[in-house]
Amino acid sequence: MHRFFLPPSAIQDQSVSFPEETARQIQRVLRLKPGDEVIVLDGLGDQYRVLLDMPAPREVTGQVLAREPASGEPATRLALLVGLTQREKFEWILQKGTEVGVAEFVPFISSRSLVQEPEKAGRKLERWSKIVQEAAEQSGRGRVPPVREPVSYSEALVLAAANDLALAAWEGEQATTLRQAIPAPAPRRAALLIGPEGGLSLEEIEAARRAGWTSVSLGERILRMETAAVVGSALVLYECERVGS
Amino acid sequence: MHRFFLPPSAIQDQSVSFPEETARQIQRVLRLKPGDEVIVLDGLGDQYRVLLDMPAPREVTGQVLAREPASGEPATRLALLVGLTQREKFEWILQKGTEVGVAEFVPFISSRSLVQEPEKAGRKLERWSKIVQEAAEQSGRGRVPPVREPVSYSEALVLAAANDLALAAWEGEQATTLRQAIPAPAPRRAALLIGPEGGLSLEEIEAARRAGWTSVSLGERILRMETAAVVGSALVLYECERVGS
Repeated sequence: MHRFFLPPSAIQDQSVSFPEETARQIQRVLRLKPGDEVIVLDGLGDQYRVLLDMPAPREVTGQVLAREPASGEPATRLALLVGLTQREKFEWILQKGTEVGVAEFVPFISSRSLVQEPEKAGRKLERWSKIVQEAAEQSGRGRVPPVREPVSYSEALVLAAANDLALAAWEGEQATTLRQAIPAPAPRRAALLIGPEGGLSLEEIEAARRAGWTSVSLGERILRMETAAVVGSALVLYECERVGS
Repeated sequence: MHRFFLPPSAIQDQSVSFPEETARQIQRVLRLKPGDEVIVLDGLGDQYRVLLDMPAPREVTGQVLAREPASGEPATRLALLVGLTQREKFEWILQKGTEVGVAEFVPFISSRSLVQEPEKAGRKLERWSKIVQEAAEQSGRGRVPPVREPVSYSEALVLAAANDLALAAWEGEQATTLRQAIPAPAPRRAALLIGPEGGLSLEEIEAARRAGWTSVSLGERILRMETAAVVGSALVLYECERVGS
């Protein structure tokens, strides 16, 4: 069934009024008809089964049939801190990361980042938000993961303090595996830091450790940064679910 | 250190003679010099630390400093059976799948596959082989995973018999998770089947079950087929490594 994230204000008691853009998508793109059912998400953790009505040519409203907690959100809230990189690759990380369950994206700029201009990246926030919202709707997420303004590496490191577990993937890490780094019970809030293409410098990984990050190995093979971001996020969430809360 | 897969015949006792194309890459692209060290893999499970020599302008040879078992191969040999799809997406699955440790790729064509012409796809085998070899070299694999000629869905299903464990990812599976489907000790040979964009039809998943496949859920969220192929492979190998042999 088609899923739409709407501003909570669009959902009043038992009735839903779809914003203009969503109404256009429902009528022109998806060609849904009055009487069709869709799922509306308020982005706050609830989802609604909604019966569509179209009282006027370009007006789409809906009647709430049922309200339930949104599925599709991992028990562990995972923030993905990832080195800012070229557009296609970064947008790919946003889309796939949303599918696997990342709860928040924080792009950062470190010494080896391919992209070094935060202000330019900042102007892309709207485009990024569209990508994660679409991926969240298609993958059945209960919330749309926010994409933060790009931060400096030192600002990124501070976020360890906001999480129960802070893991920094590092190809130089020989000892600590994900499994060893994720104790039971699973952390409620975790962060995974993935460096840029060139990796993190030794100084940067040491700074991360001082800031409370645990350097971990994602396995024997060397993953490209975009693969590490998506697969690493999936593995962290898988392991957190396994050890349980 | 740079890694190169060479035909075993290129490695004689303590000396290596690099094929013309590899020699050109070493000299022109990577700009390596005599005395530089590289890693040579025979693709049969061994790797060699090699000291480069360039006796003639376009000739690159090497002296074997050490021979050791190649690292980077998972204990479980995972075959990924994946619905044939559009070029960019399929090549992306080959590249990322190789990074996460897939041991063999088997493209198949089922009722909802976007690409329905195996012979056309067959002509792409050489290009596909280049992609997996490059990814295997960059990610530190000990072997280059072969990419098979596309097969029909019924031919793909037969491969369950060649594996200790055969898992078919299906979005309709409510009960069985990966963890439940992978018992200890870990299978030595496993297969993961990922349907096309449109998913597997009910008839197709029932045919798979009759052929010995276990339908599994990859989690609460709906993954695009390319994400399911790469993340699913990574999760299967992670779980196999965790339960141990």
